Amino acid sequence: MILTFTDFGTAGPYLGQMRAVLLRAAPEVPVVDLMSDAPAFAPHLAAVLLAALESTALPGDVVLAVVDPGVGTGRAPLALEIDGRWFVGPDNGLFELVLRRAREARGFRIAWRPANLSASFHGRDLFAPVAAGLARGRTDRLEPAQPTRFPERPARPAVVVYVDGYGNAMTGLEAESLPQDAVIEAGGRRLSRARTFGEVPAGEPFWYENSLGRAEIAANGTSAAALLGLAPGTQVTLTA
Amino acid sequence: MILTFTDFGTAGPYLGQMRAVLLRAAPEVPVVDLMSDAPAFAPHLAAVLLAALESTALPGDVVLAVVDPGVGTGRAPLALEIDGRWFVGPDNGLFELVLRRAREARGFRIAWRPANLSASFHGRDLFAPVAAGLARGRTDRLEPAQPTRFPERPARPAVVVYVDGYGNAMTGLEAESLPQDAVIEAGGRRLSRARTFGEVPAGEPFWYENSLGRAEIAANGTSAAALLGLAPGTQVTLTA
Amino acid sequence: MILTFTDFGTAGPYLGQMRAVLLRAAPEVPVVDLMSDAPAFAPHLAAVLLAALESTALPGDVVLAVVDPGVGTGRAPLALEIDGRWFVGPDNGLFELVLRRAREARGFRIAWRPANLSASFHGRDLFAPVAAGLARGRTDRLEPAQPTRFPERPARPAVVVYVDGYGNAMTGLEAESLPQDAVIEAGGRRLSRARTFGEVPAGEPFWYENSLGRAEIAANGTSAAALLGLAPGTQVTLTA
Repeated sequence: MILTFTDFGTAGPYLGQMRAVLLRAAPEVPVVDLMSDAPAFAPHLAAVLLAALESTALPGDVVLAVVDPGVGTGRAPLALEIDGRWFVGPDNGLFELVLRRAREARGFRIAWRPANLSASFHGRDLFAPVAAGLARGRTDRLEPAQPTRFPERPARPAVVVYVDGYGNAMTGLEAESLPQDAVIEAGGRRLSRARTFGEVPAGEPFWYENSLGRAEIAANGTSAAALLGLAPGTQVTLTA
Repeated sequence: MILTFTDFGTAGPYLGQMRAVLLRAAPEVPVVDLMSDAPAFAPHLAAVLLAALESTALPGDVVLAVVDPGVGTGRAPLALEIDGRWFVGPDNGLFELVLRRAREARGFRIAWRPANLSASFHGRDLFAPVAAGLARGRTDRLEPAQPTRFPERPARPAVVVYVDGYGNAMTGLEAESLPQDAVIEAGGRRLSRARTFGEVPAGEPFWYENSLGRAEIAANGTSAAALLGLAPGTQVTLTA
Repeated sequence: MILTFTDFGTAGPYLGQMRAVLLRAAPEVPVVDLMSDAPAFAPHLAAVLLAALESTALPGDVVLAVVDPGVGTGRAPLALEIDGRWFVGPDNGLFELVLRRAREARGFRIAWRPANLSASFHGRDLFAPVAAGLARGRTDRLEPAQPTRFPERPARPAVVVYVDGYGNAMTGLEAESLPQDAVIEAGGRRLSRARTFGEVPAGEPFWYENSLGRAEIAANGTSAAALLGLAPGTQVTLTA
């Protein structure tokens, strides 16, 4: 299975062109668009989301991750073998948090270049063909190389990394590691934990452990992001 | 064929995670995302849309319908066998209108629980595995049970149930049952029927029988929803 | 491979219904949604985009293109065989620019009509079944006919044809044919060419050759469309 993780948006001609490349190169490999609206221009936020979604990828899968504001500059194209899965994408920190908790990891640089390489869409021209090849076991386009590391980036940042269509704001905080009575301050409000939406009065903001194990700020029946002024990159404060 | 009907939005990581589960559990069964932006938090409106789209599901198909604001509370998870198709989702009235016109219906409760059940994403953890199983004929996770009924809900409500990307506002009214000269009042305007967009002057609002057989409020070349202030839940008035 | 190109939007029940038809009629043919948010109500702009995306379709493919504001009026339904690919859709100029540079083209009118033809959704009822048939070699629903031509439409209009999720504004201008120092005026600003985003200071607007070979107006790390007030249909000015 190839899982795509991009900031292309669900609209536009980008996903479709990349899908067409994958399908022609590896017609027998199913493709799932895991996430197509990762925070644009923000690999450091997308890295938190990708780590949260990592468990969707099982051994044998290929994760094609393209959040690539530096496309066309010198950043290297990578393929990383991490705990039995391949991760393909730019060397800009997108894989930092997945790498940091890997049990086994091997790094490669994509040495191959296609005959036609656009300056702005390596997802279609470079990463997709390589990902399709890796899904079929083809590794001859790679050469060993270490990815750039970003040790200063926090693994569980107290920051909004995604706002979904309901207006729920996912943070980088891991819910499991927080005390039951932890309070998150966001948009000038002090928010308590609830287990699920139904426990909370309508319109009231709260935080809960979302289905990816992260602390997520929500409001019952309305948009917490609109209510509290939250967007990807907004800092929140954890108070015990 | 598995047809998904959700309020997840096309963006975000939800559809992709559910797709990955379906694909792993039943790789040979094609999946179509029939609708991913049913009105959020509003099973009573989504129920009207689902009934309008019902004929897309043919015998042998599984409809995986997740509009589930009560996830994590006591509402039961259901599987309904209706006229040869399976409908899987929460017991919150989402299937009320499909049930009401069923020729044959058998109700079940999902008795099975996965090892890991999140509090907020039963679409991924519970409903998708069961739907994939049903697509392969696996019924051992079910036990007979009657769904909650909602007899007070109108089958053809005079209310906007969906606004599409063009700004057309679909109502719950069945066009066939309306007299040819029926007038629909919406946003302070009295709207007459037209057969199609090309019949109407540019910018003029009207109503017509949409491709699902419902009365839909539109305007030629512009957004009727913006023009008339329509959103899911807006009441309209039918005058003969 | 069937490639869909529509203005349906990624949301709503339209793509899903069309997908279900394609999948039932030709289960062995993969479908890629190449673009689902072509400019609505604007076949003349969509035609420029479709021509820009044309090379995604290889011999044997079927392009199912539905930007069809005249649905339900007298416009003919077409199937065009162009350089080994089929293009299926309405006779409203959507295929004009693809036709204009075709090496070989044969025109057909769709003579077949389904038992149930809605007034407003020929994509589902008429074009999808025919496209699925053509993907399997079935041509008996067609009769030779010439498409309407639109010779007055420029092949490379100095107009915005698409704004993507990043806020980049693609124009109809072919980058290759422009001098290296060409200046594009848009939103009261004079924009120079850059090769890629990383070359330009943050927030600064510029134009570049996008991955489809078109001149696209962008700004590093922000939305050029918001900055300059650009939308599909906005005229720009080319100054040498």
